Amino acid sequence: MSLYVMKFGGSSVGDIERMKRVAGRIAAKQDEGHRCVVVVSAMGDTTDELIDQAKQLNGQPPAREMDMLMTTGEQISVALLSIALHGIGRSAVSYTGWQAGFRTDETHGRARINEIVPRRVLESLEREQIVIVAGFQGMTLDGEITTLGRGGSDTTAVALAAAIKADVCEIYTDVDGIYSTDPRIVKTARKLKEISYDEMLELANLGAAVLHPRAVEYAKRYQVKLVVRSSFNHNEGTVVKEEASMEQGVVVSGIAYDKNVARISILGVPDEPGVLAQVFGKLAEEGVDVDIIVQSGVQNEKADFSFTVALSELAHAKEVIEGLHSALPYREVTSEDNLVKVSIVGAGMVSHPGVAAQMFEVISKEGVSIKMVSTSEIKVSCVIESSNLQKIIQALHTAYNLDTEEQAFVGGPKDRR
Amino acid sequence: MSLYVMKFGGSSVGDIERMKRVAGRIAAKQDEGHRCVVVVSAMGDTTDELIDQAKQLNGQPPAREMDMLMTTGEQISVALLSIALHGIGRSAVSYTGWQAGFRTDETHGRARINEIVPRRVLESLEREQIVIVAGFQGMTLDGEITTLGRGGSDTTAVALAAAIKADVCEIYTDVDGIYSTDPRIVKTARKLKEISYDEMLELANLGAAVLHPRAVEYAKRYQVKLVVRSSFNHNEGTVVKEEASMEQGVVVSGIAYDKNVARISILGVPDEPGVLAQVFGKLAEEGVDVDIIVQSGVQNEKADFSFTVALSELAHAKEVIEGLHSALPYREVTSEDNLVKVSIVGAGMVSHPGVAAQMFEVISKEGVSIKMVSTSEIKVSCVIESSNLQKIIQALHTAYNLDTEEQAFVGGPKDRR
Repeated sequence: MSLYVMKFGGSSVGDIERMKRVAGRIAAKQDEGHRCVVVVSAMGDTTDELIDQAKQLNGQPPAREMDMLMTTGEQISVALLSIALHGIGRSAVSYTGWQAGFRTDETHGRARINEIVPRRVLESLEREQIVIVAGFQGMTLDGEITTLGRGGSDTTAVALAAAIKADVCEIYTDVDGIYSTDPRIVKTARKLKEISYDEMLELANLGAAVLHPRAVEYAKRYQVKLVVRSSFNHNEGTVVKEEASMEQGVVVSGIAYDKNVARISILGVPDEPGVLAQVFGKLAEEGVDVDIIVQSGVQNEKADFSFTVALSELAHAKEVIEGLHSALPYREVTSEDNLVKVSIVGAGMVSHPGVAAQMFEVISKEGVSIKMVSTSEIKVSCVIESSNLQKIIQALHTAYNLDTEEQAFVGGPKDRR
Repeated sequence: MSLYVMKFGGSSVGDIERMKRVAGRIAAKQDEGHRCVVVVSAMGDTTDELIDQAKQLNGQPPAREMDMLMTTGEQISVALLSIALHGIGRSAVSYTGWQAGFRTDETHGRARINEIVPRRVLESLEREQIVIVAGFQGMTLDGEITTLGRGGSDTTAVALAAAIKADVCEIYTDVDGIYSTDPRIVKTARKLKEISYDEMLELANLGAAVLHPRAVEYAKRYQVKLVVRSSFNHNEGTVVKEEASMEQGVVVSGIAYDKNVARISILGVPDEPGVLAQVFGKLAEEGVDVDIIVQSGVQNEKADFSFTVALSELAHAKEVIEGLHSALPYREVTSEDNLVKVSIVGAGMVSHPGVAAQMFEVISKEGVSIKMVSTSEIKVSCVIESSNLQKIIQALHTAYNLDTEEQAFVGGPKDRR
């Protein structure tokens, strides 16, 4: 008998029929002799509809009141799922985030979990009930309702699994598991049996949308065994754990890409100490996240440097830099926005030197030029022109022996949280 | 500067436009220099839609889970109303029932308020915020979410007004106030300027749907001054308070009717002690409320008696009585269901004898026979055939000098809670 946390996203409980199917799936797990704690997101479009209503009343609704509004979405889900389980003769109980003991800080809209006090969840498990917990939400010490922000329901599931010492945390979603790359781009993409936390974290950070990085971080910190699988079929999913058993000869586990990337170059900057600190300090202050930074060689005491930001923050970042011009004399600022960042990720890289060089060679053989490079212990990222995305990912996928014969399963609408 | 509790029902906040109008109305009250605490019901059809979804999953959803589900309706309303108020530049804060300090017993679906601890409401008022509280809901000591059942939002408003010592509790609804009788039946029905708690309680119990009896009871117990008025216009409403100033010559203040009534007669029952206790004890045990009871004279040691129950409980009540036949030998059980109970209510009756006799005379002049009668200090009820309803109410309305020249305002769809 194991203790499972099962997390179902919004599309998995998108309507009454899907809700019934999820209830059946939970009941089947219980029939196998397991205890179940279930985390659910808001149904399908509920969240969007609530946001739309709020925007009709106020273009800039206050974050506290939005949290009051949005948390009703998950509360409806948990109540209905519990009602569905009772309907098939199961004893179930639903809890809001605060009832389940999620204590957060006071940052409405993207609160951080300070503590979980799962007394009631554990008591209900003692009574052999199926426990259903609203994802994405918590409460401050002062009794204010908060939401956890993006990836919130995954984080709820993983954090709860850690708090109640669950054996497994299953993330049910609209894809079969974690793939070697996006199956919509590479038809021969392969579903991974296992992947390590670190690899998953890189993939998630690099644009693989299946799991939110924050949830993976939690899983790694508390050593929660994750399984990512489909809520629409019974295929085996992908296991995310500390040390994934390395397959023979596999150096690269997955290839990720991120289209939300733009490059800014500042040309002819005085080569003086503190210049970089000045630029990136100001950008951080203004809330602009900078990813890859490259400084080119110095000529005539003037330097050029480039960095990437999210495409959605490009205009804002340029404004910030133009605002610095009086304090920081530079010749020119340029930017580029038809870019994509392609990354290879693999724990095997640590013991296999030359992986980066191989990547550059594959890209160059395809006649594509690399704009920027960034590396870490287990990943190499290259920024290229976005028109080359498909060609390069396919070439890398083949070069690193990731192709499979099977056709990948690509599911329904994306889960949001 | 006064402290107002303003309660808006579901039809008053039925859509985004109405929500905006309510926000404007609250802001206007604040501009007059008053402090405002607002109680809101779920928007329009929200409650019905939630019930419908639940029923699709489970014909008999458990009450606890229904409370989890239903309370989201009011939480959405309070959040949106607060967002609307922020949108017009007001500082507002929304609270769920439990946040506002409503502590109830554990009877899910129809919980009773044990205590109100309005600390946060008072603190927000100190900060000059408009406080918006979800009606109809509370929490048990163990942190379970409950609903107050029928009339719940009115009760929330009145109980909160008592707890925070508000000067006035305004109930905004879809009619102009309390009328001398139903304006849809009698065109010359008159809006009352004032009415006493006791009269209002009788009217509410006798079928006048504007206020729930439970809310009136609370108001009487805690001496909360109520004003019932329309959310769709600015007409003066009706004041409900302890001693309504008696208008000259007014003995009867209002006429109510209730179509949800049926009569059961048990004929040829042994005239022995304990028979009535046996019948009505069993009915109470089975949850059947009995209203008027009449026992006729005894013949040959056999008695006949009749009583009324809600029409909706007639079948159930008859089953219960048939189940008693082995223990209680009776000759026959009959029932009648095309009935209506017409009641006259007036505090003036106490000092004006002969009011009941006058009522019987009016009814008899119309050629209508009275099936049953029930009286209290300030009301007389007669059960008659329902086909005579309009004729009798009109005749009584004229006989007691209640007619007015004005045309009554009859508003939009009924508020539910």
